[in-house]
Amino acid sequence: MPKRRTLSVALIGTKFMGRAHSNAWRQAPRFFDLPADIQMAAICGRDRAETRRAAKTLDWERAVYNWKAIVADPTIDIVDICTPNDSHAEIAIAAADAGKAILCEKPLARNVTEARRMAEAVKRTRVANMVCFNYRRVPAIALAKQMIAAGEIGDRVYHFRARYAQDWIAGEKFPMVWRLQSKVAGSGALGDIGAHIIDLARFLVGEIAGVSAVNETFVKRRLTKNRSYAKVDVDDAVSVVGKFKNGAMLNLEATRFAHGRKNQLSFEINGSRGSLTFDLEKMNRLRFYDAKDPAHARGFRDIIVTEPNHPYIKNWWPAGHIIGYEHSFVDTIADFVNALVTRKRIQPDFADGLKTQRVLDLIQRAAH
Amino acid sequence: MPKRRTLSVALIGTKFMGRAHSNAWRQAPRFFDLPADIQMAAICGRDRAETRRAAKTLDWERAVYNWKAIVADPTIDIVDICTPNDSHAEIAIAAADAGKAILCEKPLARNVTEARRMAEAVKRTRVANMVCFNYRRVPAIALAKQMIAAGEIGDRVYHFRARYAQDWIAGEKFPMVWRLQSKVAGSGALGDIGAHIIDLARFLVGEIAGVSAVNETFVKRRLTKNRSYAKVDVDDAVSVVGKFKNGAMLNLEATRFAHGRKNQLSFEINGSRGSLTFDLEKMNRLRFYDAKDPAHARGFRDIIVTEPNHPYIKNWWPAGHIIGYEHSFVDTIADFVNALVTRKRIQPDFADGLKTQRVLDLIQRAAH
Amino acid sequence: MPKRRTLSVALIGTKFMGRAHSNAWRQAPRFFDLPADIQMAAICGRDRAETRRAAKTLDWERAVYNWKAIVADPTIDIVDICTPNDSHAEIAIAAADAGKAILCEKPLARNVTEARRMAEAVKRTRVANMVCFNYRRVPAIALAKQMIAAGEIGDRVYHFRARYAQDWIAGEKFPMVWRLQSKVAGSGALGDIGAHIIDLARFLVGEIAGVSAVNETFVKRRLTKNRSYAKVDVDDAVSVVGKFKNGAMLNLEATRFAHGRKNQLSFEINGSRGSLTFDLEKMNRLRFYDAKDPAHARGFRDIIVTEPNHPYIKNWWPAGHIIGYEHSFVDTIADFVNALVTRKRIQPDFADGLKTQRVLDLIQRAAH
Amino acid sequence: MPKRRTLSVALIGTKFMGRAHSNAWRQAPRFFDLPADIQMAAICGRDRAETRRAAKTLDWERAVYNWKAIVADPTIDIVDICTPNDSHAEIAIAAADAGKAILCEKPLARNVTEARRMAEAVKRTRVANMVCFNYRRVPAIALAKQMIAAGEIGDRVYHFRARYAQDWIAGEKFPMVWRLQSKVAGSGALGDIGAHIIDLARFLVGEIAGVSAVNETFVKRRLTKNRSYAKVDVDDAVSVVGKFKNGAMLNLEATRFAHGRKNQLSFEINGSRGSLTFDLEKMNRLRFYDAKDPAHARGFRDIIVTEPNHPYIKNWWPAGHIIGYEHSFVDTIADFVNALVTRKRIQPDFADGLKTQRVLDLIQRAAH
Repeated sequence: MPKRRTLSVALIGTKFMGRAHSNAWRQAPRFFDLPADIQMAAICGRDRAETRRAAKTLDWERAVYNWKAIVADPTIDIVDICTPNDSHAEIAIAAADAGKAILCEKPLARNVTEARRMAEAVKRTRVANMVCFNYRRVPAIALAKQMIAAGEIGDRVYHFRARYAQDWIAGEKFPMVWRLQSKVAGSGALGDIGAHIIDLARFLVGEIAGVSAVNETFVKRRLTKNRSYAKVDVDDAVSVVGKFKNGAMLNLEATRFAHGRKNQLSFEINGSRGSLTFDLEKMNRLRFYDAKDPAHARGFRDIIVTEPNHPYIKNWWPAGHIIGYEHSFVDTIADFVNALVTRKRIQPDFADGLKTQRVLDLIQRAAH
Repeated sequence: MPKRRTLSVALIGTKFMGRAHSNAWRQAPRFFDLPADIQMAAICGRDRAETRRAAKTLDWERAVYNWKAIVADPTIDIVDICTPNDSHAEIAIAAADAGKAILCEKPLARNVTEARRMAEAVKRTRVANMVCFNYRRVPAIALAKQMIAAGEIGDRVYHFRARYAQDWIAGEKFPMVWRLQSKVAGSGALGDIGAHIIDLARFLVGEIAGVSAVNETFVKRRLTKNRSYAKVDVDDAVSVVGKFKNGAMLNLEATRFAHGRKNQLSFEINGSRGSLTFDLEKMNRLRFYDAKDPAHARGFRDIIVTEPNHPYIKNWWPAGHIIGYEHSFVDTIADFVNALVTRKRIQPDFADGLKTQRVLDLIQRAAH
Repeated sequence: MPKRRTLSVALIGTKFMGRAHSNAWRQAPRFFDLPADIQMAAICGRDRAETRRAAKTLDWERAVYNWKAIVADPTIDIVDICTPNDSHAEIAIAAADAGKAILCEKPLARNVTEARRMAEAVKRTRVANMVCFNYRRVPAIALAKQMIAAGEIGDRVYHFRARYAQDWIAGEKFPMVWRLQSKVAGSGALGDIGAHIIDLARFLVGEIAGVSAVNETFVKRRLTKNRSYAKVDVDDAVSVVGKFKNGAMLNLEATRFAHGRKNQLSFEINGSRGSLTFDLEKMNRLRFYDAKDPAHARGFRDIIVTEPNHPYIKNWWPAGHIIGYEHSFVDTIADFVNALVTRKRIQPDFADGLKTQRVLDLIQRAAH
Repeated sequence: MPKRRTLSVALIGTKFMGRAHSNAWRQAPRFFDLPADIQMAAICGRDRAETRRAAKTLDWERAVYNWKAIVADPTIDIVDICTPNDSHAEIAIAAADAGKAILCEKPLARNVTEARRMAEAVKRTRVANMVCFNYRRVPAIALAKQMIAAGEIGDRVYHFRARYAQDWIAGEKFPMVWRLQSKVAGSGALGDIGAHIIDLARFLVGEIAGVSAVNETFVKRRLTKNRSYAKVDVDDAVSVVGKFKNGAMLNLEATRFAHGRKNQLSFEINGSRGSLTFDLEKMNRLRFYDAKDPAHARGFRDIIVTEPNHPYIKNWWPAGHIIGYEHSFVDTIADFVNALVTRKRIQPDFADGLKTQRVLDLIQRAAH
């Protein structure tokens, strides 16, 4: 029997995504029977005090203050990139060149040029790589994928319609943050939340053939920490229509200006024999209309996706106990580790992330 | 070919129920292919001006001010009783003795004694008779009945649970009205709205074997038109548990003190192979859980009961167009006229209404 | 006191819309205190037997088989046009020239040219005129309009997003009907159901500045009554993004290929201080998010629009009793009669219908 | 500055609750700023292999096979009892006598006699003690408590109505398990899930004055592992009506025979100025009807309880990210540790658990 491997992980980034990924690395071995042990070796951030605190709270062995030290460290197997979008390319390419397996937060990069260089780097170096579009592993969405693949909504898709709506910057007095600056974020609602529904469109329906789009920046300037105003040079919202290569119609909207919508990633897919709908604000549910049900008893079924035969659920709690946002990251990392050890390809990889980036780019150009 | 018959109708009562029944008599021939013509001959009320106005607005040929004139009129075929509960017995018995077909608003009477006399009168005189428990003919409820009869939730019922909740007297300042006086109404929430869910319990599941109950009068006195206070001597709410003769468990609640519930007649039935739920505030829907659906795709189906194959719907609008409260009365009257002409028995008749009255009585005694 | 006027109405068309309008003419005087009496003088259709039957069932005094006879009849005051779209212009212009008040089903015409001629005719002849976009008078939508006007969602609208989805032709075997033929219908889902949400966009938010669109005909040919195939030359679905003149973003979708959606006219409006959502499949509800609610207790309010202080409701039933599809037509006709008698302008008139037609045209050209 | 304390924990039980509590001990220090360090010292179970596996997977330092060794170990500060109900009393009393702080799964015991002995033991020994009614710490329920306390639904409660419904044994072929045996479980649905809603009734509204009840065992015998049948001697369902000491009415139902209900702990509270409703299957939501809202805009608000100002949420994720079942245990354990270190009393303690046990007992006797 071969000796069980230990995978040493370093995570770069200490903010929201750093916390979500840390939790996932910590929880994955507790709920999944992983083929390797996980060593949470290092967390890296620029602010020393904050990074030390994060290491302690989030249970990393050590704090590091320069990502290059991580990449240069031969004991590290996996680099997990949770930084703002403007550093993804540089870190990922260096990590690939150092032979590290890479998990990178979405969107893959600020633009297609960066994303292409990243995809080329991992192809060249043959390192394991994945973009963390975590929502693919929400059980209800994974179930939707299975049902579509099994033909449960028919052999043809007519419509994919998705909306990612939030309201956290809908107030004019919300201050300037990095996500509202093109230099760091690349784009606004489009790249931040729109990227998720584009990834899901491609995951669930197929490649996109063409788009028309409009976007808007409703609040043109925001107050900075220096009490001066800075220009918002990214989109506050974007709305897209288009077609898939398979003939299905596409309708997408991403906005942070929808009062009352806290984290509403929702979609509806209409096929030739049925429909599916999902809303992340009710993430343990999938609604399914089966046009083959008896005529008197047709209606959207409100499936509570917490049964042992639903994707990922048997790893969590007994039937009927709902899971939350963070679990999608644990599922993602468990799959990543499994693929890494068994040397199987995993989706979405950087090549896949590049395709999503091309669609982001297409939309941005269409909106101008 | 026999000459087509004309049925001459007189309605007693000009308030809410008078309006609802008038509309039904007027609309029934427009949407249903009735086996007789309907003549809206007379409406009867005590207030002359109001009754004349009602006759004109509601399209009755003449206004009458004493119900005895109706009963004595040999040209009248059908008497429709929409008065407060304390006059049901007297009118109905006189109408039966005069050989009139009778439609009577629910509850049949103030108490079992009255109800028994009414049931005996129609039995003795063999006149067509019906109690207007209109909700039996809401399409979603009629569909529930069909599905239960067809075994779609299994051959055994475990639970029937219903609640009829409103909030129109939840404010302490709501004034005294006849529905809050035992002498006129018999009981409070129990007889007014509880009667409906007891009727549905019996209609959908079967006869009730025994009950325990509690009730309460939350606001003990109300302001009258004379600016003095009068005692509220009926229940504001009642809550009941019990068993059906077939072994199913019963849980009922009727209240007018549930803020936010405007007309929430809701029920859930759990059977050995599935469940059904209904809520009158969403009256065009029936929810159905089929435990025989594939394990990964089970969930309550939200059936929009507006398809041509649903009960009564083909008489109304094309698929997908919702109907309202008043339609249940039109459906009821159409069925009543059909039964009358074809001399078929119709449910719920007075004998059936008496059974419901016995349950009301049982609950009232249990609650003391 | 002036003598009370009687308005003599003739309705052209005996199918679905003919039935809906007939019901509205019959019911309006029963529920609304109209300033004139309504005489349901004549119904007109080409099929003699069917029209006679309709006259009897729907309660019209006489059947007529040529609309020109109606227009030529000096005793007729109001012409109500419920025919397929290809005859709207000819009938309406003739009726205007004959000095009749006109109610015309939507969309006003097959195209802008026809609509412009119609608008010019009523302007020239100064006859009362209205396009029957009945959904403006659904109480929940009328309430939304009031709330927006009162600033309850803020002084600025960010998003209007609407979808009108049905599934009645989603099956490939559904046969050819006039609504699928460009020559009669003008366009497909766009003009039939899309017209409603464009009207509501304009009613609730304002004029549209520009659009991008895609459309599709999923099933290219359908079986005719002759058992041969005919080409479907209208859109099965259309998806639109755009902007309003006031800067709000627009996202629209109309489709008849959404399995499970029976009559889902839904919209969401996001303003600077709140949001509103509506779904015709739950037509007695309006959802309202008030961003000014206390921070711990914010959430979409599910307003059951059946209270006496809600638009049109005091004419119907006591609080809490839901109404249906047909009531929107009664409300519309009551308003039309009131405006006619008091010589006030009513919305949407033909000039307004022309504006909607221009948007339909804009979308159709954008989609090519 | 005093030295930071380390609390050494031993958990007894390796099944569902063992896993849920293990996760909570592991996660609490990662999300809450606890006043002490947590040492996950030992997990105890009878099956050696299974317990060793649990220790490894769930991250406990060592496996122990006899709970008496735990109680006897002076290095252990906290004993967490996650065993079946029949061993709660013996373990808890021994732990109290050994001076351990105790967290005990609900229900506190099989009956009042046991519960009283347990309450006396912790009172006598003055050890910190808590019953794990975890749902009190679901953010939406904690928010409901705050809102009631602040008078947001008025100064008087009219109705508390709760239902805990599941369907996992609704099939006749589901085998015998310990939860269906009176000797181990004490009671059936009543003690297992009914206990939760009784605890919430007392938590949210107040003490219960009296009850009437019915119960039923629908499936009287179940197949054991030995392929023979054993009698089910606990209730499958129980239904209760009653009154609170403050005059509010009570209606409770607990059942495992409601097909489609996976883990539906739901309640509705109607007060003199508003209402609250909750459903564990939508656990991140609280619905609130405020009768003081403007008359045209009243409706149940669907509050998504994921904002930083909601209870416990700032410890988890940014606004809008939903949490799951397991988080209620982490919140509970964080509160327990805080109370332990600061020597504050915590609810529900054993004295409180005894009161719930008395209500369970009252219901059981009423149902006979």
